[in-house]
Formats: sequence, C-alpha cells, structure tokens
Amino acid sequence: MTSAAYDTNNIFAKILRGEIPSVKVYEDEHTLAFMDVMPQAPGHVLVVPKAASRNLLDADPAVLAKTIPVVQAIANAVMEAFDADGVFVCQFNEPAAGQTVFHLHFHVIPRHEGIALKPHSGQMEDGAVLAANAEKIKAAL
Amino acid sequence: MTSAAYDTNNIFAKILRGEIPSVKVYEDEHTLAFMDVMPQAPGHVLVVPKAASRNLLDADPAVLAKTIPVVQAIANAVMEAFDADGVFVCQFNEPAAGQTVFHLHFHVIPRHEGIALKPHSGQMEDGAVLAANAEKIKAAL
Repeated sequence: MTSAAYDTNNIFAKILRGEIPSVKVYEDEHTLAFMDVMPQAPGHVLVVPKAASRNLLDADPAVLAKTIPVVQAIANAVMEAFDADGVFVCQFNEPAAGQTVFHLHFHVIPRHEGIALKPHSGQMEDGAVLAANAEKIKAAL
Repeated sequence: MTSAAYDTNNIFAKILRGEIPSVKVYEDEHTLAFMDVMPQAPGHVLVVPKAASRNLLDADPAVLAKTIPVVQAIANAVMEAFDADGVFVCQFNEPAAGQTVFHLHFHVIPRHEGIALKPHSGQMEDGAVLAANAEKIKAAL
C-alpha cells in the first residue's frame, strides 16, 4: 500500500489558492469545480474539495459527503449543457490507478453515443473554448 | 438528455431484496457492498445505496452523502487486502457512459503497477474466488 504526504504545491492546491488560473464553473465554501484543461470530451469538469487530501484514501469522510452532491449537480448540468446521452464519473487514487495530480478530484465527463473519449494526455484545450463550455454548464446549474 | 424510470426488477434491486445471491463485503442500514461477478481485477467491489435510484443523476443527495464514505472505506480496504498500488473508482450514468445495470453503483477496483484492467464484459469469476477475496476485504475493513 502506497501512501505519501499531501504536497501543498500540487497544481490544484495552487488553483485553490488562486496562484494559477482556472476556468471555474461552480464554487462554494467547501468545493470548487473547474474545466479540465485537457478534456476527454467537451464539458469535462473536475470537482475538488477545498480541504487538503491527496486522494479519496486520506480524505475526511465529512468532506466527501459535501463533495459528492456537487459532483451530482455538475453531472446533471453537463447532461443538459451538452445534450449528453450519459455521464462518466471517475476518480483515480495513486499513480498505478492513473492519478497525476495529488489533490482529491472527481472527473465528470459528458458522453455521447458512439463518440469515444479522448486520451487524457492529449493537447491543452483553447482557453476560449473552455470558457464557452463553462458558461454553458453554469447556465445549466 | 436521457432519463427513464427506475426499474424495480433490475439485478441490483433483486440483490438488495435477497432474491439473487451476492458475495457481500459490507452492509449497513443505507448501503451494500458486494463483489462484482465479472471483476476487472481481483477485489473489484460494487458499492450501492439501498435507496432506489437509476444512477447518480436522480439520486437523493442525502443518500449520496451516506454512500461515498463507504466507497472510501472499501477503497482503503482493497488497498490493504490486495496490497494494491492504487484504486480506481468509477461510476457510469446511462448506456452511453457504459451503465448496464440501472441502480446507482460505484465500482471500486484495486490497481497494481503494470497490470491492465480486464474488460468488464469478461467471464464470470468462480464463486469460491469471489468469496475468498470478500473475506480478505472484510478482514481489512
């Protein structure tokens, strides 16, 4: 079993502190949702608790209980905003599971029949496209 | 946006009513966790709320808040039980996203470095193997 300390300089910690910009779709006292810059499909959102945890394994259950309703709200919003046929929610813990940023995050990805997901290691999406997609999601929230 | 009524005869509803057997790893008033019969890796567990919902989209947020700490507990248990390097958590909403059973469920799948996941459409695992894996997880809970 791997486990490591929380690195306060991970990129999502920097986003939460406002040191790095993000295209936000939702924010409350406990949770932030913003556009994934390498979307696997248009409307790919990341939902992160503001509290520090490396991933699901070391998170405060009370924080999780506040995060998951936001994941749900974003899932419903992307269904509407992108006229999606489905939504894929996933969450990676540790590198062996595909985790690359070590602050707990849930991926919320709209799906359309017959359209495969793009690899997550793809190209950075244009900021204007991300901003336009964020506006669609905010309108559906 | 697709949406459909909850089918009370889906296979997980039948498992929850005890009409179909399952290899359980955890149960409380609100939540059941049992072995996936077509595991993508040894130790693949499904966590389902007892309350009826088709998927994440129509679930009661209060139910989600009770489900996700169980997902976390199972994730930590499979890490320990299978000496895993990571855990993949995923949740599919509607057929376009890969949902095949229409009762909300979270997949919790242990990962090991360099070992790919098996397809979910694979062969049914032997019941004795599932039971032995369930015992390992219960011991780690």
